[in-house]
Amino acid sequence: MDAVASLVRELSGRLAHQATPLPSPLYLAHMTPDLPVAASLAYLCAMLYNPNNVSPETAPVTTELEHEVSEDLCRLIGYQPGTGWAHLSSGGSTANFEAMWIARNLRSVPSAAAAHPAAADLVSGRSPLVLANMPVHQVLDLVEVLSARGLLPEVGRLAAEQRREASTSGTLLLARNAHYTWDRCADLLGLGPADVEKVELTPTHRVDVQALGRRVRALLANGQPILAVVAMCGSSGEGAVDDLDAILRLRADCERRFGASFYVHVDAAFGGYCRSLWLHPDGTMAPFEDRPLDGSGARMKPEVHAAFRALPLADSVTVDPHKNGHSPYPGGSVVFRDRRAVSLVARESMYFGQGNGSRIPFGPHTLEGGRPGAAAAAVWAAHRQIGLHSQGYGRLLGGCIATAQRLHKRFSVARRAAPTASHDVNSEVISCFAPDLNILNLSVRPRESEYQRVPRGAFGRLVLDSILAEAASEPLTSLYVSGNTLTGRPLPGGVEQALRLCTMKELGPTALDVVEQHLRAAVSRSAGKVSTYGVAAKPGSAGDVVHVSPAKEWK
Amino acid sequence: MDAVASLVRELSGRLAHQATPLPSPLYLAHMTPDLPVAASLAYLCAMLYNPNNVSPETAPVTTELEHEVSEDLCRLIGYQPGTGWAHLSSGGSTANFEAMWIARNLRSVPSAAAAHPAAADLVSGRSPLVLANMPVHQVLDLVEVLSARGLLPEVGRLAAEQRREASTSGTLLLARNAHYTWDRCADLLGLGPADVEKVELTPTHRVDVQALGRRVRALLANGQPILAVVAMCGSSGEGAVDDLDAILRLRADCERRFGASFYVHVDAAFGGYCRSLWLHPDGTMAPFEDRPLDGSGARMKPEVHAAFRALPLADSVTVDPHKNGHSPYPGGSVVFRDRRAVSLVARESMYFGQGNGSRIPFGPHTLEGGRPGAAAAAVWAAHRQIGLHSQGYGRLLGGCIATAQRLHKRFSVARRAAPTASHDVNSEVISCFAPDLNILNLSVRPRESEYQRVPRGAFGRLVLDSILAEAASEPLTSLYVSGNTLTGRPLPGGVEQALRLCTMKELGPTALDVVEQHLRAAVSRSAGKVSTYGVAAKPGSAGDVVHVSPAKEWK
Repeated sequence: MDAVASLVRELSGRLAHQATPLPSPLYLAHMTPDLPVAASLAYLCAMLYNPNNVSPETAPVTTELEHEVSEDLCRLIGYQPGTGWAHLSSGGSTANFEAMWIARNLRSVPSAAAAHPAAADLVSGRSPLVLANMPVHQVLDLVEVLSARGLLPEVGRLAAEQRREASTSGTLLLARNAHYTWDRCADLLGLGPADVEKVELTPTHRVDVQALGRRVRALLANGQPILAVVAMCGSSGEGAVDDLDAILRLRADCERRFGASFYVHVDAAFGGYCRSLWLHPDGTMAPFEDRPLDGSGARMKPEVHAAFRALPLADSVTVDPHKNGHSPYPGGSVVFRDRRAVSLVARESMYFGQGNGSRIPFGPHTLEGGRPGAAAAAVWAAHRQIGLHSQGYGRLLGGCIATAQRLHKRFSVARRAAPTASHDVNSEVISCFAPDLNILNLSVRPRESEYQRVPRGAFGRLVLDSILAEAASEPLTSLYVSGNTLTGRPLPGGVEQALRLCTMKELGPTALDVVEQHLRAAVSRSAGKVSTYGVAAKPGSAGDVVHVSPAKEWK
Repeated sequence: MDAVASLVRELSGRLAHQATPLPSPLYLAHMTPDLPVAASLAYLCAMLYNPNNVSPETAPVTTELEHEVSEDLCRLIGYQPGTGWAHLSSGGSTANFEAMWIARNLRSVPSAAAAHPAAADLVSGRSPLVLANMPVHQVLDLVEVLSARGLLPEVGRLAAEQRREASTSGTLLLARNAHYTWDRCADLLGLGPADVEKVELTPTHRVDVQALGRRVRALLANGQPILAVVAMCGSSGEGAVDDLDAILRLRADCERRFGASFYVHVDAAFGGYCRSLWLHPDGTMAPFEDRPLDGSGARMKPEVHAAFRALPLADSVTVDPHKNGHSPYPGGSVVFRDRRAVSLVARESMYFGQGNGSRIPFGPHTLEGGRPGAAAAAVWAAHRQIGLHSQGYGRLLGGCIATAQRLHKRFSVARRAAPTASHDVNSEVISCFAPDLNILNLSVRPRESEYQRVPRGAFGRLVLDSILAEAASEPLTSLYVSGNTLTGRPLPGGVEQALRLCTMKELGPTALDVVEQHLRAAVSRSAGKVSTYGVAAKPGSAGDVVHVSPAKEWK
């Protein structure tokens, strides 16, 4: 026990002195929330029993809690708990992988059914154009009938063979600012590089729905399969919310025009819980009102409300309890509108024949299989402590969003950064655009003439590196921010590297003063260091000597 | 705080009364260990800081601990920590998925290099037969040169296009008793059903290396790509250890004969930590000795020792700290012999140019990306409390294995199960075969003439269901076992369903008496219930009325 005590003292001491101080008002770097007391205690309680939610046999209590969380998440998104389904995942990446795995397999069922002698009658009379892009609910009806006929394994096998033989499994369309794991997702699933199409952004960092519509219509008209359209609901870099309402209107229009359609997945890993801003306790959603929200004072944009209102029509949604759900790691999740979809990736699906509302076992129906029951207990407790409605999570997240909005206001006008005694350098910190949710991007740029030739991206990167170095040397009292490459805003001199602030807590006026002061001083100091050590020291060859470190991972 | 206290009381009460009693000697159902005190405390300490090991920025302390765990795991397997690499995963499934993702991408690099004008010189003079199955270390050398030339992204893209256009990404060969997630792995990665070949088993439930060799040689001789050969080191159902030594000799022979080779992955999710049975504190491995191991008294088979001795020559190994590593969920891991392999699935690999021994960031180089730093802290503490050598984990796991061996001895002769007052029924419980590690399979079968026509599998299933029902109704005092379908031992009347016992703790003679007594009585009672409610009640139509529930998930 002495050795154990010494190990724990060592760990505990290192954590106390070196861990990032998430509860500090100056910690604004990543999507890591403070944990509600109930969530921490629930994780600790359950972990001591070490349950594995792979099956109720190994974890009778916490699998039940995960099923309750599944129903919570369906209600949060606006799905029917009896026909929808959700489960926890290790994070947003695996949740997205699983949804796309399902979408890929779903897309190839109709043509495989057409090629199977005992199933062809189910899709007779459909044109090749419709078979290539059959509407999702029709494919799921087909899957149910195939299962009832005992043909699902055979047709599934045939579909896998056809996918292998075809030159494409379908095109995946998503915005250019999608998280970097989306390219890895495509590679994991065996898509070709040409199967992923990145759609341009609007100046508000949302996907350009006009451009998306042109591509979608061209693919449908040619009978080329669309694997899925992925909309962002809180992009990782900017917290931007794609116009999901318009994407779903596009889909409805395509169904009318072509009889063909596409799978819609929403990556709401960051933004999903914000739907609670407008949720009544009975799960219905309040209409948009053009005034500050009660309690938090956040003023939401009408198009953001419209996107959240449209969420129940998407086919699947990734939403991370460990981000805005204020639950501990690991706590990702994926939510399906129609639980029949999970049979497309299970070896032996236990969904069919058990009726609606039944308990789908987690092991064979999830990418991870085994999973910590303690994570389910923590999310369950967080949901119950906070409440999935406007006065619970809505109040909490409204406060986080209002904080981003207040910081935006303070930085929306370019102001001379306060020169310090040691670094008498002018630089500007400007909020690039009004945030959709609780992430703020700040542009930093030099003002003096000797800086004018410094590439904008490089300057932002140097300032960020300097702030990170300060935080690493004084972890408990420093300002923490992260960086973001603003792909939607190419500038003269390269892509801009902005400072990225995730406001995962509500800050009052005094805390906001402290944050603003620290930020301006940190930027000024960092600009001074750039002057001393970096670019500006050699005015003639400014751009050449910049050493830019690799982009930081943000989460 | 009242509401929080009430939530925690509710959860805590449910766990205390309904959770499976893992520390009980009667709990033998799943691969869930008791947790060492240091591991639990470390998880709890770290969780309160909620670190995400996606990058050191979000978790400076626990990413460092995960790097230390990475070195531990390399040493456990026998890899060089400076050139190998490991990371924690959410479990064995994602670890296997990631290794196969790498193997799939690796396999297609040489032919893509041959097709790229600026890279073709690197593979000039190689025959198509060799290009299709270039030895792994040669592919990794090639990848390193491609990276130095700045060609890796382009050649990677070309490889993905070629995979998409080819009718196969290569054949995946593995034993018939591989875990069910292997089929899901193949589907996830976009392999066709014909790309997975299941190789027959020997009577000892190990892969038949003769049969494997015939297939491998045929594929290599025809220039057909082999994605990987997967060996089991502790199969989920039987704890069987494939003859890895012979598989690696087969590989060496193929390299001599064809100049071509194949990737070897070992699924040691369950068995990996057992290598510590023979590890000296300096990481070297003791030779085989035909006598009971010091301390535990376990007698290991020479071929099992030989398989563990061969482990350092495999290309990658899945090993789960949350199984025989006695760490809490989530704690899987995957270990790579050559860290250059991880560049094959990263978007922008930070491996190259940083030299050996450098810290590879976890976010962009792992399937999950984000991951709980607390899990790393727990595994780190477990390794330090117990010790990765023969007197640490070796002593602990030797005790678990000796327990399986002692139970095997007690059940190796068919004995009349003790008839009880209420159920005067004869049935037999027999240990099917001497276990390789700490999993035991018991056959149950009826003795009376009226049972003779009951399918053997169905009888085992009915007995198992009855035992599980007893455990569910009296969770704190019942015997817990799981089931296993013995694919390697087809019997007249169908595949046999055995009772499966995972001995995750050492039991002394008194505890073994209690377990034996409970097992015989439970089987007898269950056989009685089968008599009353099931098959035997209708002697004439025995096989028809058996209702067999779906196979349980085991872990």
